[in-house]
Amino acid sequence: MIIILKEQAAPQKIRELIADIEGQGLSVHQSQGVNTTLLGIIGDTTKVDVEKLQALDVVAQVKRIQEPYKSANRKFHPQDTVVDIRGRKLGGGHFQVAAGPCSVENREQILTVADQVKAAGAGLLRGGAFKPRTSPYAFQGLGGEGIELLKEARERTGLPIVTEIMNISHLDLFEDVDVIQVGARNMQNFELLKELGHVDKPILLKRGLANTLEELLMSAEYIMSGGNEQVILCERGIRTFETSTRNTLDISAVPMLKKKSHLPVVIDPSHAAGLTWMVEPLSMAAIAAGADGLIIEVHNCPEKALSDGAQSLRPAQFSEIMDKVKKTVDFFGKSMDENQM
Amino acid sequence: MIIILKEQAAPQKIRELIADIEGQGLSVHQSQGVNTTLLGIIGDTTKVDVEKLQALDVVAQVKRIQEPYKSANRKFHPQDTVVDIRGRKLGGGHFQVAAGPCSVENREQILTVADQVKAAGAGLLRGGAFKPRTSPYAFQGLGGEGIELLKEARERTGLPIVTEIMNISHLDLFEDVDVIQVGARNMQNFELLKELGHVDKPILLKRGLANTLEELLMSAEYIMSGGNEQVILCERGIRTFETSTRNTLDISAVPMLKKKSHLPVVIDPSHAAGLTWMVEPLSMAAIAAGADGLIIEVHNCPEKALSDGAQSLRPAQFSEIMDKVKKTVDFFGKSMDENQM
Amino acid sequence: MIIILKEQAAPQKIRELIADIEGQGLSVHQSQGVNTTLLGIIGDTTKVDVEKLQALDVVAQVKRIQEPYKSANRKFHPQDTVVDIRGRKLGGGHFQVAAGPCSVENREQILTVADQVKAAGAGLLRGGAFKPRTSPYAFQGLGGEGIELLKEARERTGLPIVTEIMNISHLDLFEDVDVIQVGARNMQNFELLKELGHVDKPILLKRGLANTLEELLMSAEYIMSGGNEQVILCERGIRTFETSTRNTLDISAVPMLKKKSHLPVVIDPSHAAGLTWMVEPLSMAAIAAGADGLIIEVHNCPEKALSDGAQSLRPAQFSEIMDKVKKTVDFFGKSMDENQM
Amino acid sequence: MIIILKEQAAPQKIRELIADIEGQGLSVHQSQGVNTTLLGIIGDTTKVDVEKLQALDVVAQVKRIQEPYKSANRKFHPQDTVVDIRGRKLGGGHFQVAAGPCSVENREQILTVADQVKAAGAGLLRGGAFKPRTSPYAFQGLGGEGIELLKEARERTGLPIVTEIMNISHLDLFEDVDVIQVGARNMQNFELLKELGHVDKPILLKRGLANTLEELLMSAEYIMSGGNEQVILCERGIRTFETSTRNTLDISAVPMLKKKSHLPVVIDPSHAAGLTWMVEPLSMAAIAAGADGLIIEVHNCPEKALSDGAQSLRPAQFSEIMDKVKKTVDFFGKSMDENQM
Repeated sequence: MIIILKEQAAPQKIRELIADIEGQGLSVHQSQGVNTTLLGIIGDTTKVDVEKLQALDVVAQVKRIQEPYKSANRKFHPQDTVVDIRGRKLGGGHFQVAAGPCSVENREQILTVADQVKAAGAGLLRGGAFKPRTSPYAFQGLGGEGIELLKEARERTGLPIVTEIMNISHLDLFEDVDVIQVGARNMQNFELLKELGHVDKPILLKRGLANTLEELLMSAEYIMSGGNEQVILCERGIRTFETSTRNTLDISAVPMLKKKSHLPVVIDPSHAAGLTWMVEPLSMAAIAAGADGLIIEVHNCPEKALSDGAQSLRPAQFSEIMDKVKKTVDFFGKSMDENQM
Repeated sequence: MIIILKEQAAPQKIRELIADIEGQGLSVHQSQGVNTTLLGIIGDTTKVDVEKLQALDVVAQVKRIQEPYKSANRKFHPQDTVVDIRGRKLGGGHFQVAAGPCSVENREQILTVADQVKAAGAGLLRGGAFKPRTSPYAFQGLGGEGIELLKEARERTGLPIVTEIMNISHLDLFEDVDVIQVGARNMQNFELLKELGHVDKPILLKRGLANTLEELLMSAEYIMSGGNEQVILCERGIRTFETSTRNTLDISAVPMLKKKSHLPVVIDPSHAAGLTWMVEPLSMAAIAAGADGLIIEVHNCPEKALSDGAQSLRPAQFSEIMDKVKKTVDFFGKSMDENQM
Repeated sequence: MIIILKEQAAPQKIRELIADIEGQGLSVHQSQGVNTTLLGIIGDTTKVDVEKLQALDVVAQVKRIQEPYKSANRKFHPQDTVVDIRGRKLGGGHFQVAAGPCSVENREQILTVADQVKAAGAGLLRGGAFKPRTSPYAFQGLGGEGIELLKEARERTGLPIVTEIMNISHLDLFEDVDVIQVGARNMQNFELLKELGHVDKPILLKRGLANTLEELLMSAEYIMSGGNEQVILCERGIRTFETSTRNTLDISAVPMLKKKSHLPVVIDPSHAAGLTWMVEPLSMAAIAAGADGLIIEVHNCPEKALSDGAQSLRPAQFSEIMDKVKKTVDFFGKSMDENQM
Repeated sequence: MIIILKEQAAPQKIRELIADIEGQGLSVHQSQGVNTTLLGIIGDTTKVDVEKLQALDVVAQVKRIQEPYKSANRKFHPQDTVVDIRGRKLGGGHFQVAAGPCSVENREQILTVADQVKAAGAGLLRGGAFKPRTSPYAFQGLGGEGIELLKEARERTGLPIVTEIMNISHLDLFEDVDVIQVGARNMQNFELLKELGHVDKPILLKRGLANTLEELLMSAEYIMSGGNEQVILCERGIRTFETSTRNTLDISAVPMLKKKSHLPVVIDPSHAAGLTWMVEPLSMAAIAAGADGLIIEVHNCPEKALSDGAQSLRPAQFSEIMDKVKKTVDFFGKSMDENQM
């Protein structure tokens, strides 16, 4: 961290600042130019509060060199994290596809879709029990009942289940869920993240619509600093000026996150564009860019889906895409571990 | 609402769709062009699920004409909503300034600042007890103790208090708070919004960093559909490509929200730019654009602030700005109701 | 400028880098930390090529402290620039309103509008002769004939004329124009900017849809470095995710540009929102934020306008707004110099 | 096109509007709801001026169904366009890599790089003679001399050359260039586009930093409506809030442009992220998403590059990437046509 002092900074104030920083266990290296004084801060600056420094009278600018996250940082953990989901591995060369309906709607629907996505080669079953909907008048999900149906589908197919939490007070309903998802709109629901730091389960953390990759890693850090190191990062499209797709898939997020962090990175091509026909090319691009997995919406009857039908694939379409996914994952040197269980 | 059907839509499927829509209590008016068939949907389409319609095989596009919110809509409630905060009015020509520190830090700080902002003419005292911080290592607020200190400051000064909630389970701590704030990062924390719909208190709802004005109004609708109609909308800057300011104040949000909705609109010039020296010109612009109030960060010692020091004003600076605020509010024909209590 | 070197930078390479920088007439101050070496560059770094430095093997990061523009920089020119337009002053406390149709369409139209905007109190007449249109099939303007009609309107009303250039080869047609406008889409048409640096006329430079304020100032620098210091900066809305307004007016641009630069700043409330009814509140906000002028579209018959009718005011509406503009400019301490000529 | 009329629209005005539209050779189908009147416009609405319609008193909203471009539209030209560049094919299954330095700097540099990129398998040589630089103080390119050096490199290697035009008046210098590039900043320099519509050479049209895909296609339409149908579209990253990459590569642009248009689409992974190490994963993603080619910056000595060194590859790095590019292009079913000449 470099602190650039104001030209007119009083020597006494500078000494106080140096003493304060040293009091935090850091070393300070002062560099005196003709009319600029710089302080180089040496040591672990992860926990230094930049905003507080910037508010000081004597400080002109503060520039971070070190990243503000530590547990999620590849520098301190060079090996890829491999998340274990009921024996299925994700990360470190192991590729997984989670598939299923946007919302769990009824017993028949989820069991049918679970059978179909399993047959097509998916390794995980996804489905929403609690649904974040922009309108209070839209279908809000089956809630606890939806989770029970997902468990039944898991029993039948052996596929571990992934579902979204929206409210800390529902946490006990998620006790038997395999992967807890945090949706884009809750990426900075810090109270929820803190709570999930105490859970012994993988957390699938989706990037917020307008959050930087650094903020995503800081939110992972919230979970990890609580003790839960099983975080899966998910890029699902960001909000930009472009309107022909619902969001803009930030494909660079894959190599960037994998460089900055040891955590696995998955892509959600269904939400990224909001268009069924674009799931295939975006899935291919995700694999090619180095992603560790995909989350794909599949519905047995998209035209009757209670939410997000426009971006859901039919099982037959999904099956075709999976054939290409398998070959492409193989071509790019990862394995799909289909038959672990 | 207009539904544009696909060219090859089968007549049988079209009849089913029409029957389904009519089953929701709406009328359908079919218009047959040479190769385009349109369905005009007449009636209250607020609760129609557009995504579900878009997923239908026969549908090419769905275009809303009517807004998807009703309680917040000025069309159905032409009069300005005036929110009453312990006898102080906000909206409908009544202008309020809420001021105070980003975080409540200790008893002396909050009491001192409260005295100072009252002396300068603020009508409400703001202060954070629970703080949303990007880093898990940054100061997270005093929590319940902070709320107690705010209440003590209210007792001393008579200023009603505004403070942010981050977790539904903290709701009982807010029982004696005058205005509950929902922060930008929780604007689409729908579970929290639903809960606040059952509270009998004004809610200050901040726009999310990348949320449209329609989404802001939909979040207000979440609260209002639960029964709580006392919602204050707050524009606090959106995320754009520009980096010289922390966020970009969307000043057009003021006239647009006031045209679309009857709810009062306030501006947070402190967070919008993140720069102390810009609070004054942005406050002037907000008043000129028709805002009903301001939320301004004031700290008795910004360089020691535990959060957001860089954007906090010193009390003397705030006092100068308030002199201009009062004259400008008066020039633009609103009243500040300073001495109601 | 601070250069942060890579940890493993070879001493010989560092010495070469220092020699190279010193060869550009700058001083280098080396600061050695435990595992970070910093070089502080002292002197006028305006012309240092940051990208070239960043490409060096030994360099980790380069951070500018000084702004990369000089002629436009208030630091080197603390006094406000006052632009003189045929005797009418803009900047330094002098406020001007330029008004007129988006496109000059015919003799009757431009003469009528010119009379009307003059009567309402506008100080400058604007009108497009060459029009940048997204579609090749849309009306492209009257070209040279439009400029002739503007000159006739100037003769009749005494109002100096402002019109847009799109092609360097048209420059001779602009010889008798009073202010040459560079549109948003040409803000980084550097060849055009260079050419305008040799013209002895005020240039109205509009901010690009996705350009930062620093880039706007760099484009002003292109013109100024050629010798033409009469640049007027114009904020006209930026492109964001918000769709209820055509663009998002960045009101913070006014105080920021005026802090960074001595050049006058005007606002175009017509293009910013693309909505007639929003011209008034945005004009008020612009004045309150410290703008030096406004550019407003006025058409004698907006429903017949060949371009941008939706955002054009009728003369009677413009006249009402001008009454408020005059009072507001006066309230905020600037003068409108209506009767200079 | 659907026109939604205002509730209070006078019948006489509606009749006039219908007559006016019919006068443009279109049919109008009126649909009368309880309180909404719709006009469906049937026929080729490409050239209808939406803004003009929206300005009409009786019109509430206008919604396009048909795209506003025709020559670029796949609907009217279902077959992929294959551009022929001195016998090398691009599009329709033919994949090309253009490589070379950001700027042509001197004879030795461009000849060396040309030899190296040819050896690595590039099919086209790119190099900037005229350079758009944000700062007037940065290196602006060798100009005409740079083009002469490119031609010499072509003679030596047989590689066709691609270089950027910034000024219409330079057009004669480009007479013997093989592909003329229009840079992102000039994507809406409509005067330049019109001129290029009369050139008999492929045009490589880069998407602007904040331009939608529809606008990109409209700019292609400008060129094509002039008679030049050889347009290559290029996605090179858009401007968003994310700061860890210089721009955000919009990978969805590839499938979207190819669905909407028959024109070939190439990706510039060097400018997209601005990071050398990210060129490989983004190139892989581009191929996987269906791109028809890549434009990659290669410099024989990036640390001495006069522009954009940070994103340029060394020839050895480029050669390694090309090995993977060839295999990946083959895997995804396209051919590289390396040995056509």
